[in-house]
Amino acid sequence: MTKIKVFEKPKLRNPILVEGLPGVGNIGRVAAGYLIEELGAKKFAQLYSKHFFPFVMLHENYQTHLLKNEFYYWKAKKKGQRDLIFLIGDCQSLSTQGHYEIIEAILDFIEGFGVKEMITIGGLATGEIEEDTPTVYGAVSDKELVKKYAKMGIDFSAGERVGYIVGASGLFLGLGKERGMKGLCMLGETSGFPIVTDPKAAEAVLDILNKILKIKVDMGKLEGRVNEMEKFIKKVEALQKKAIMQISGDEKGQPEAKEQLRYIG
Amino acid sequence: MTKIKVFEKPKLRNPILVEGLPGVGNIGRVAAGYLIEELGAKKFAQLYSKHFFPFVMLHENYQTHLLKNEFYYWKAKKKGQRDLIFLIGDCQSLSTQGHYEIIEAILDFIEGFGVKEMITIGGLATGEIEEDTPTVYGAVSDKELVKKYAKMGIDFSAGERVGYIVGASGLFLGLGKERGMKGLCMLGETSGFPIVTDPKAAEAVLDILNKILKIKVDMGKLEGRVNEMEKFIKKVEALQKKAIMQISGDEKGQPEAKEQLRYIG
Amino acid sequence: MTKIKVFEKPKLRNPILVEGLPGVGNIGRVAAGYLIEELGAKKFAQLYSKHFFPFVMLHENYQTHLLKNEFYYWKAKKKGQRDLIFLIGDCQSLSTQGHYEIIEAILDFIEGFGVKEMITIGGLATGEIEEDTPTVYGAVSDKELVKKYAKMGIDFSAGERVGYIVGASGLFLGLGKERGMKGLCMLGETSGFPIVTDPKAAEAVLDILNKILKIKVDMGKLEGRVNEMEKFIKKVEALQKKAIMQISGDEKGQPEAKEQLRYIG
Amino acid sequence: MTKIKVFEKPKLRNPILVEGLPGVGNIGRVAAGYLIEELGAKKFAQLYSKHFFPFVMLHENYQTHLLKNEFYYWKAKKKGQRDLIFLIGDCQSLSTQGHYEIIEAILDFIEGFGVKEMITIGGLATGEIEEDTPTVYGAVSDKELVKKYAKMGIDFSAGERVGYIVGASGLFLGLGKERGMKGLCMLGETSGFPIVTDPKAAEAVLDILNKILKIKVDMGKLEGRVNEMEKFIKKVEALQKKAIMQISGDEKGQPEAKEQLRYIG
Repeated sequence: MTKIKVFEKPKLRNPILVEGLPGVGNIGRVAAGYLIEELGAKKFAQLYSKHFFPFVMLHENYQTHLLKNEFYYWKAKKKGQRDLIFLIGDCQSLSTQGHYEIIEAILDFIEGFGVKEMITIGGLATGEIEEDTPTVYGAVSDKELVKKYAKMGIDFSAGERVGYIVGASGLFLGLGKERGMKGLCMLGETSGFPIVTDPKAAEAVLDILNKILKIKVDMGKLEGRVNEMEKFIKKVEALQKKAIMQISGDEKGQPEAKEQLRYIG
Repeated sequence: MTKIKVFEKPKLRNPILVEGLPGVGNIGRVAAGYLIEELGAKKFAQLYSKHFFPFVMLHENYQTHLLKNEFYYWKAKKKGQRDLIFLIGDCQSLSTQGHYEIIEAILDFIEGFGVKEMITIGGLATGEIEEDTPTVYGAVSDKELVKKYAKMGIDFSAGERVGYIVGASGLFLGLGKERGMKGLCMLGETSGFPIVTDPKAAEAVLDILNKILKIKVDMGKLEGRVNEMEKFIKKVEALQKKAIMQISGDEKGQPEAKEQLRYIG
Repeated sequence: MTKIKVFEKPKLRNPILVEGLPGVGNIGRVAAGYLIEELGAKKFAQLYSKHFFPFVMLHENYQTHLLKNEFYYWKAKKKGQRDLIFLIGDCQSLSTQGHYEIIEAILDFIEGFGVKEMITIGGLATGEIEEDTPTVYGAVSDKELVKKYAKMGIDFSAGERVGYIVGASGLFLGLGKERGMKGLCMLGETSGFPIVTDPKAAEAVLDILNKILKIKVDMGKLEGRVNEMEKFIKKVEALQKKAIMQISGDEKGQPEAKEQLRYIG
Repeated sequence: MTKIKVFEKPKLRNPILVEGLPGVGNIGRVAAGYLIEELGAKKFAQLYSKHFFPFVMLHENYQTHLLKNEFYYWKAKKKGQRDLIFLIGDCQSLSTQGHYEIIEAILDFIEGFGVKEMITIGGLATGEIEEDTPTVYGAVSDKELVKKYAKMGIDFSAGERVGYIVGASGLFLGLGKERGMKGLCMLGETSGFPIVTDPKAAEAVLDILNKILKIKVDMGKLEGRVNEMEKFIKKVEALQKKAIMQISGDEKGQPEAKEQLRYIG
């Protein structure tokens, strides 16, 4: 059960997918989320799946929120620009098999809009707090893309630091290639300490995205926005630590749920 | 494999689903179960699933009982009342993915009876034995429902105590909303110590349910009934502690089953 | 993927299923296996499933053996006897969900032969080495069966010792009832120490089966046969302890397989 | 989701499958891989699956590589030779159920090319560094194959050292037999220390394969090639130890992924 609910079927010309699902440093989420707001991209579909956590979040104390991934589109305004599809969301798959199933479902869906290129955004965790401007590492599904993107300031030596890319950012390139799509994965250098949003790494990624997509997005609001996000994230953290566990499931009969909660709490 | 066996297809007018599956304090199970008996609601379908525990329970020492969820209906008797569908049962899904699959199967089923509204019942575990009348916290799938239900005595500050609602009570609202259904989740405040049935929290929920559903259910028998349930639950507990494990499965070849039994025992 | 390969489609009149899959004390396996040989029942189908262990066993040092469940039939010879279908095998499901899936597949299959009654055989582990003749406990899917079977010497107070029956022996009754099949589960009292075959408990079960099925099976060869099985089982045990692990899977990429092997070894 | 992408549909006469997926000592991978290169076999299909790890590997620092299994074919050149299909790859299934699902998918596929015989290659781990020429143990799906292959120098006493064969090498024989295919599994004796490629065991297997398949493959380049592979493997190991983890998934919401990474790191 992975369902995509479609609100609108925009006509797009040769669009690029920009993926920014949660991950190390939440770099993709911040960067893609910021572009969506600054460009005024429009939501046209959302996805939910049995591979997500079986709970709803509470917004503003009382409003239930189902875990989702969301699709937005933006149409090119100027020459040189491209139509864009953004993919952001609350989470990635909980299970290993779910990663494959969800990404295949998304590829089926966006193939229908003519997507042949994609840019995915993740983080490369160094384990150290970096002082300098974070490097943006890159990986590509097709060798010839390196020339094009190296000029933009992307460092293509990621493989010296990591042997693989786990989750959506990597699998989109791998599974996309099987369908003839070409992809770039941008990995912002970050400390990797969990659940910290890294605005500096997101900014470094956004700088390069601006160049690649030929858009001019004002970076001035980024810090404010990240602060907002940080506040929200910290609040959720705090709530979870208080851990007034509400479990709508028989403890006795639900070892898995119990495990998750211990994990969450 | 999630199957719904239908005994009768009642014609219902704009019915509300009242969900009371097992959970913290078994508040939903007690409250919905009590309403079913007091109102004389009629069983019309039952569900079983591969996502439940792979065992049968023994009733009255020798009668096997497959784990099930059950559907009952009740037709409005007076003006202002609504037709009702009750969902109660022995358990929720054992696996995270099963929650989504079972609830989607139930939503498919009840959609066929015209359900557009739902009330789910769970518990909010505080970790403390409370002396006072338990608060009933609420969460809704749509903001505008708050006004309607706040008047009934529901406290909509749950989000200050919990960040999410795990399992059926929450997912019914989340997944139902995707189909245009509106829902209220009532969370009775309870200590949350496992497998204790909390009659006070159930009563607090029933008081409000009486108002919302405009039914007049005599609360006098509740304590007696909860005592009965307690007796049953304690007996099961005791039996399990004696733990004369009967495993119809090769220990050698069944790590999962073994794990469950250690858990149960 | 649960497949049933059918060699022959026997015409049977109102047959009873006798299930003897591996379990505590391997009582069902011994009892049903012994009946198959003594009666000369004929194999007509076999089942394999992704829910079994992903390995083949080695017979006689070099012949691979896929894990299977097997179906045999036997036709009534005398008045009062009934046609029989036997189900025996190497293992039960490894996963909880697999139990439901495999048993549903088997019920679909045997329903085609007109099965409306079933006798399943398991063990009730007491944790103690018993000196006396083992009690045979019983459980039934329908109350009215108790009268019929209590006369045969089955003790229907199992529920005082166990609260549930895990795995195939129990689920066949529970899931069968949903299809209008009636069932008896016989639980031979046994110590429950793993991977010990309990010939005394199997004999106690066979004595009662002889009466129920109105067959006269000579019990004289049972001890010899159980000794043979013991020898085989001990050999497998010894081989596994030497644990010259042969793993046809990248250790690196196979945490689950690794886990199983640690378990086996 | 297990997909086979087909590049070419070769016409083959009564081909034999030679399977060399990763395993203990990577013996199958080395042996089959060496034959593919020396014979100039041609790739005609590849498989990927949700049962593989949810990541892409990085080749040459920046090129993403989806985990795959690959099919190659080679046509007989001389009398006495047979057409061959080779199966090699990056990994086997991560989950127990995936083994069955992937192998069934492959059997469906190769059945279409008329495969009725197969040779699978694994390792038999002894736990000791052996000085002498490694023994090649054998197992077969059909007894009568023993005579044919014992002459080639295969030792059919494997069962004295192991009780089963885990993963693809064994399941191909077991599941293949259910379709009327006959199979030999060759197990090269190796120490079994993880992620070490054992060239000596691979050479012992290749010597016998040369005889069985009536091909004359020059063994002179084997050592060089294994050294190359070793270098690659050690590099990957080193990268992973540095463990600059790049996780494109919310740590918080991904217990499974986390677990894998701890495992990998």
